[in-house]
Amino acid sequence: MDIAALRTAHPDHWMKAAAIRTLTLDAVAAANSGHSGMPMGMADVATVLYEKHLRFDPKDANWPDRDRFILSAGHGSMLLYSLLYLTGYEGMDLQQLKDFRQWGAKTAGHPEYGHAAGIETTTGPLGQGIANSVGFAIAEEIQRARYGKNIVNHRTYVIAGDGCLMEGVSQEAIGLAGKHELGNLIVFWDNNNITIDGTVDIADKTDQVMRFEASGWHVISIDGHDPEAIDKAIIAAQKDPRPSMVACKTHIALGHAAQDTSKGHGALTDPDQLKAAKEAYGWTGGPFEIPADVKAGWEAMGERGAAARAEWQDRFLKLSGTKQAEFNRAYALEAPKKLASAIRAFKKQMAEEAPKLATRAASEKVLGVVNPIMKETIGGSADLTGSNNTKTADLGVFEPENRGGRYIYYGIREHGMAAAMNGMVLHGGARPYGGTFMCFTDYARGSMRLSALMQVPTTYVMTHDSIGLGEDGPTHQPVEHLALLRATPNTHVFRPADIVETAEAWECALTAKTTPHVLALSRQGLPCVRKEHKAKNLSAQGGYVLADAEGKRQVILMASGSEVSVAMEARDILQAEGIGTRVVSMPCMEVFAEQDESYRKRVLPGGPARVAIEAGVRQGWDQWLLGERGREQKAAFVGMDSFGASAPAGTLFEKFGITAKDTSEAAKALLK
Amino acid sequence: MDIAALRTAHPDHWMKAAAIRTLTLDAVAAANSGHSGMPMGMADVATVLYEKHLRFDPKDANWPDRDRFILSAGHGSMLLYSLLYLTGYEGMDLQQLKDFRQWGAKTAGHPEYGHAAGIETTTGPLGQGIANSVGFAIAEEIQRARYGKNIVNHRTYVIAGDGCLMEGVSQEAIGLAGKHELGNLIVFWDNNNITIDGTVDIADKTDQVMRFEASGWHVISIDGHDPEAIDKAIIAAQKDPRPSMVACKTHIALGHAAQDTSKGHGALTDPDQLKAAKEAYGWTGGPFEIPADVKAGWEAMGERGAAARAEWQDRFLKLSGTKQAEFNRAYALEAPKKLASAIRAFKKQMAEEAPKLATRAASEKVLGVVNPIMKETIGGSADLTGSNNTKTADLGVFEPENRGGRYIYYGIREHGMAAAMNGMVLHGGARPYGGTFMCFTDYARGSMRLSALMQVPTTYVMTHDSIGLGEDGPTHQPVEHLALLRATPNTHVFRPADIVETAEAWECALTAKTTPHVLALSRQGLPCVRKEHKAKNLSAQGGYVLADAEGKRQVILMASGSEVSVAMEARDILQAEGIGTRVVSMPCMEVFAEQDESYRKRVLPGGPARVAIEAGVRQGWDQWLLGERGREQKAAFVGMDSFGASAPAGTLFEKFGITAKDTSEAAKALLK
Repeated sequence: MDIAALRTAHPDHWMKAAAIRTLTLDAVAAANSGHSGMPMGMADVATVLYEKHLRFDPKDANWPDRDRFILSAGHGSMLLYSLLYLTGYEGMDLQQLKDFRQWGAKTAGHPEYGHAAGIETTTGPLGQGIANSVGFAIAEEIQRARYGKNIVNHRTYVIAGDGCLMEGVSQEAIGLAGKHELGNLIVFWDNNNITIDGTVDIADKTDQVMRFEASGWHVISIDGHDPEAIDKAIIAAQKDPRPSMVACKTHIALGHAAQDTSKGHGALTDPDQLKAAKEAYGWTGGPFEIPADVKAGWEAMGERGAAARAEWQDRFLKLSGTKQAEFNRAYALEAPKKLASAIRAFKKQMAEEAPKLATRAASEKVLGVVNPIMKETIGGSADLTGSNNTKTADLGVFEPENRGGRYIYYGIREHGMAAAMNGMVLHGGARPYGGTFMCFTDYARGSMRLSALMQVPTTYVMTHDSIGLGEDGPTHQPVEHLALLRATPNTHVFRPADIVETAEAWECALTAKTTPHVLALSRQGLPCVRKEHKAKNLSAQGGYVLADAEGKRQVILMASGSEVSVAMEARDILQAEGIGTRVVSMPCMEVFAEQDESYRKRVLPGGPARVAIEAGVRQGWDQWLLGERGREQKAAFVGMDSFGASAPAGTLFEKFGITAKDTSEAAKALLK
Repeated sequence: MDIAALRTAHPDHWMKAAAIRTLTLDAVAAANSGHSGMPMGMADVATVLYEKHLRFDPKDANWPDRDRFILSAGHGSMLLYSLLYLTGYEGMDLQQLKDFRQWGAKTAGHPEYGHAAGIETTTGPLGQGIANSVGFAIAEEIQRARYGKNIVNHRTYVIAGDGCLMEGVSQEAIGLAGKHELGNLIVFWDNNNITIDGTVDIADKTDQVMRFEASGWHVISIDGHDPEAIDKAIIAAQKDPRPSMVACKTHIALGHAAQDTSKGHGALTDPDQLKAAKEAYGWTGGPFEIPADVKAGWEAMGERGAAARAEWQDRFLKLSGTKQAEFNRAYALEAPKKLASAIRAFKKQMAEEAPKLATRAASEKVLGVVNPIMKETIGGSADLTGSNNTKTADLGVFEPENRGGRYIYYGIREHGMAAAMNGMVLHGGARPYGGTFMCFTDYARGSMRLSALMQVPTTYVMTHDSIGLGEDGPTHQPVEHLALLRATPNTHVFRPADIVETAEAWECALTAKTTPHVLALSRQGLPCVRKEHKAKNLSAQGGYVLADAEGKRQVILMASGSEVSVAMEARDILQAEGIGTRVVSMPCMEVFAEQDESYRKRVLPGGPARVAIEAGVRQGWDQWLLGERGREQKAAFVGMDSFGASAPAGTLFEKFGITAKDTSEAAKALLK
């Protein structure tokens, strides 16, 4: 590249972009780790975007009607941190850049949501940002339909690299965005032809322009270092009703000795090469030094947004008080006050009616209560709507012709669905839930982990949660999934036993602010075990005594979900033989673990033999079988230690030995 | 559709295809569950493929040079079972079809590898089959380069549905196949425009023809019910040097009242509608009745293959004895005899040299020993070759210009890589291994679970296995992954402590026949803890005493991987204070659990306080902390209970309290 020509053609632009490049070089050198090349390659695009288009207010980073900027290529985090520092976001001072990748800094190796104002989502695992962005754009469309374009009218801009586009989840995102004609979504592809292992063509020869066009996108190809071309492309993208992809031909590590090489992808720390690059840029300042006029130029960019924000605020205050309150409540992730009473009334009615129902069907009934009073819910399923029971009549289907619809047909895209749901929560004002078979959490793990890490309360409606799925067989039967979801920090896995617990689990999910919830729901019908109404949400304690022993307490049976009724039957058998048996329902062991010790001891006192029953693997139950203080416990587990099989559900429970008889025998064996 | 016109245009073909359709209807009706529409829609394509092209021998289902047929749309399993029955595969008798989806039958809800001859891979989780097929085709290319086209020269045919193509993993497969110009791969797309939730366009408007062409595929669009068009398309696909996609416009549930509807996707069991469909087909036989001439026509198809197989056998016997032995050994998944001695010699040398090395670097050294003597290994990485240390100099890079290369640049495609590796093992004659960061097993879970379920010994080289990854931060730091991989049945997770254990772990992986292996390897350098050479593979016992207590045994420290040296340091501290401390290295707890009880008790005797140390979550360790018989144990865990953070690795181990000092203090606290 002829750096000198770039400098002279657009000197003001050049210096602003060079600020990103030099801050990146300096921070990576200070950390002695990181990724230099991507921010250096995309500095021109980012500069034009921020200077001419992005509507943001560094003094009010969370202004709801701001444009969103998502760095899907999260390894290029110094691009984002530079932008936040240069434009003057609160808390992103120069020291943060100097502490890049150090303990306690806001400037983690990859952008972490919640660390600093202006980080819209956590990226780094490739493809996640572009897949989140579909959710951002959907949330924006739905809210524009509800509140009007005076209140909600902004864009989602994304920078994605070759890594993002090679990940399968990107195809799910591209397909979904194309179908829904998300015209406010604009993706810049950092087309630098470099990956870690070499040039892109050692692994892929895909014509990305053609690929995006195949899914209904508007595509523009430009020189990613030409500010005029970048500006024109953004204007064209804004005007087009389709989602737009701007293919930006760029040079990774522009102006550095490692330009256009794989080495340029990583940490460029050689002092002489760094010096040479800065010289080529015409940059005279020392490390982390930004000329005052350049910094002032960057800070001025936020002023456009600040003015727009003030105008927006005036318009917002003209909304009815009810609308304002609803809007603010949804953005605060507050449940409406009437949710609690509605759930309570529903529980009371169900305890009286005591229906035998699959918990997935129970879940649909709960949603029938919830969705009309929580307009921020956005339902959906990865092509299993009838099986996941996720759709209620009032939602309407989200489509280009019906932007107010609150139900998404995600297609056969579990990963894309999970990522989009995260994007909706991150956008604000939305509380999404989405369904698939629990086994296919495997496909969505990449995004489900990020829900937990980002602390966003996405709700996963995972039905067919055991061998109770039956004939579809072991590929569709979760066995290890409860254990692996429970192993994930900050994830609450609720496996309700009946319709009352299902309502309680939903209440927990819908009031969560920082924790994703997985609702593990049965395919098969389950009897109601909570026939005595309790106003209190017992499931919110994680585990509780469902039925106590009559006579001397010799056995405690612990179970979740569909096995709670198995435990109750086993209790009948044992009590009939004079063996005092307590049944503990454990809908969520993570929440139970958070209860105070005295409560846990009351529920699980030392002494009696313990048997856990769950149609999954034992891992995870050992902690409750052991007893908290390491006291001697006689313990057994009734569950799975292999994959399932294809047969009717009843047969499977018998063949795998998960019945009341098996349970009572396991208990009696411990008492010998 | 004008069924009558189809019948009269090609009456012989029609009856053969109708046999698939009626068997499907009968089996689904008998099971009262299943998926009728897909086999009914693709019966014509399958019939032409089998009758005119597929080279197979039902009497020798595993003939290495057969064509492979992969039903990626696995829910249409009755298509495959019908084909296997009609052509006369051993064991697939009529009773199996009558027992569709019942306990113990070979005819599971979705095709299960190993259940019946002729099932090439387990499908059902969508997208897996098409992604496996890339591995099948790569294995074929590599073996053709090695053995010549007289010995290896066959094709991989796939039927994929809209579900397969919407799953992100399909894009990874399409990109990989296009790049590698896998001309022997031919995919039929069942373009029926129907998914479970409705017509495809409620979720996707992608132009699939354009999408495949964008990745370098040859595409032909045909009427999927026209046998002449199908035949011509297959011939054209065979001739084209690119991978081919045949877009087959079909009618789901052809000829049934539910044709072209979502209902047609599922179980069609209404007796009157079934009767009407059979009448439309001109089918007069009762349930499961196939006219003798139709059955004979199907059985004749295998004869072409049988003849080809006999000719192949003659050619094979002309290979040198060495080549034959090598070929047969690789297909039997037998390690070469000299592997054991080579590993032993390597271990001896390393015990003497005792290098401090990251286990990922140790792994590269082991591969330097292994790859030259096991020509069936196929290495690769999802764009982290230098970090995963998966490439050795002798492998050569697999490319269109170098079909003999044994190293695959998979690109940023963890899921596609895992699925392709499964395909290579299933193809036969190959032992693939592939690397990524351990955290990104999240992206590959869908295929890793299938390795375990199918019992194929794919090896996953998962480096950067803890917070030891350092600055890249929590998105890249596995915390729960050891637990979740261990929770998966039939998966061996080896986390070696040093270079000697790394060699032992590789030996376990390379001699496995029915179990996938995950090698969890450190980014950071680890001291050698096995300085005393033992010829025996101690890691093959899962856990063993690395250092015993001096004096009275008061404490047992258990650890894996990078924390074994932490445990050894903690032992030094404790022994210096007169506290007798045993260190148990636990490279693979699944294998340890398989040892006989007396061995396990010798390693972990009751009595001493137990402390487990691992830079991951506790779940999984409770079983060893508890003690097998529920005896009282004083126990503590030193590890993670949250996500990690971005900082240098040393800082992270200190901040999260995973050091020798923390460990010794935890032990001492138990002794109070």
